[in-house]
Amino acid sequence: MLHPFDPGYVQEPFLTLVTEYPEADVYPSGQFRIEWGPVFHRGRLDGSARVLVIGQDPAQHETIVRRILAGEAGRRLQGYLARLGVTRSYVLVNTFLYSVYGSVKAGTRRDPRLVAYRNRWLDALLVGSRVEAVLTLGTAAGEAWQLWKATAPGQAFPVAHAAITHPTQPESSSKGNEPSLATATKKLLENWNAGLQLLSPALAHPDAPRPLVLYGSTWADGDRPPLPETDFPAGLPAWMHEQDGWAKRAGKDDLAKRRNITITVPKGVIP
Amino acid sequence: MLHPFDPGYVQEPFLTLVTEYPEADVYPSGQFRIEWGPVFHRGRLDGSARVLVIGQDPAQHETIVRRILAGEAGRRLQGYLARLGVTRSYVLVNTFLYSVYGSVKAGTRRDPRLVAYRNRWLDALLVGSRVEAVLTLGTAAGEAWQLWKATAPGQAFPVAHAAITHPTQPESSSKGNEPSLATATKKLLENWNAGLQLLSPALAHPDAPRPLVLYGSTWADGDRPPLPETDFPAGLPAWMHEQDGWAKRAGKDDLAKRRNITITVPKGVIP
Repeated sequence: MLHPFDPGYVQEPFLTLVTEYPEADVYPSGQFRIEWGPVFHRGRLDGSARVLVIGQDPAQHETIVRRILAGEAGRRLQGYLARLGVTRSYVLVNTFLYSVYGSVKAGTRRDPRLVAYRNRWLDALLVGSRVEAVLTLGTAAGEAWQLWKATAPGQAFPVAHAAITHPTQPESSSKGNEPSLATATKKLLENWNAGLQLLSPALAHPDAPRPLVLYGSTWADGDRPPLPETDFPAGLPAWMHEQDGWAKRAGKDDLAKRRNITITVPKGVIP
Repeated sequence: MLHPFDPGYVQEPFLTLVTEYPEADVYPSGQFRIEWGPVFHRGRLDGSARVLVIGQDPAQHETIVRRILAGEAGRRLQGYLARLGVTRSYVLVNTFLYSVYGSVKAGTRRDPRLVAYRNRWLDALLVGSRVEAVLTLGTAAGEAWQLWKATAPGQAFPVAHAAITHPTQPESSSKGNEPSLATATKKLLENWNAGLQLLSPALAHPDAPRPLVLYGSTWADGDRPPLPETDFPAGLPAWMHEQDGWAKRAGKDDLAKRRNITITVPKGVIP
């Protein structure tokens, strides 16, 4: 069986970008889990992307596989891209390089050094590119996009943009309350449908053209597809991209949790 | 601060080798932790290596950083290479792609498919290369070397070879008994000194030429240097290569341990 993989950072400017990322002076350790290192991207860095996605920040699964949007949010996003006929020609970056701890202060979020580094990635991925649609997940990502759009390269690059609700916003906003979760999910899917209707006509070159089918009022089968092996580093086992929920932060208090990631191979993988 | 990294598998034949590795039919899950995926190498794949090292199998640290010889054994090896003046021009591969679970049967170890895949790596790293010395760690690695030497490319590639004791053999053989550990360590260091004396004259192009200084009868300061950042994937935090002991297999029974890797950020990293 062949195992395609993502070779990662093999060309400029990415080779340089991943060697000179901002650290604790820009991402304060009171607001970010900088101790786990930055996680940069997922998807195509070779110029073949038609859709650029800006997410928020990496969590525990992303920290292990060293690619972003690899957990629940990533799988929901993958289903969204599939509805647009985009199965391969995408590239994803985050608003923040490090995992958010608590909340991010406005001064940090708008730190010119933080913004400038992210804009170098957006310049590299957009200027002169074939990207036809931009998708931002959540408010911080929407702001990140506006900050790039305000730059000279951003102004000179007209592209369709949809700012949609973050994929796991229903879970974070409903805090375990089932009726709230159902309401928030329905609202998210309406919001996502509006985004699909905005981006679909702009995508002249999807990988697998298909008629646009909108979401219903709840998640359905196929809305959380496994992520393709080709997005991940060589040698990672299939369960790391086909499943989620296998990495947790465990510990008796906040500091212990912050110091920990516990990985458990899903049931059924070991014969 | 700049963070050099290892770009990994960016050229043939490595691009292909990491997509078509042997799986459970060659590495039975009763003898290997195949559920964590293969881990292929550490060091230079660009033809600049002067020393080739064959280790045994990846353990839990290696599984997280996706590079081999990254834990205690790797740090001791790094000190060994430093005594030879080799600080960068090395490449390391293992006898086995997957972590050994229990022990490996002779029939598995000599499975022609297992040997053939490993020999493709050795061909790629040695034939026409600038490698001046080969180091094998432990008996399985020594056998792997002999199996390659018996092939036509192996016979046609004369090179100095030292078969030395595996770096953590003293710990595994002494099972917590302090006097046994001291005796086994002394014996290992004598064995390592013989290897240094064999390889040192063969190394015409060390990175940092220095007079050969042999080990004493116990480990000394500097014998376990941190591993260089440039050997690891982009974005990994410093503690993952400067320290070890941060990954453990935890669980209430053998199966639970096999399914688990628990990562704990070392003390002092989070301010």
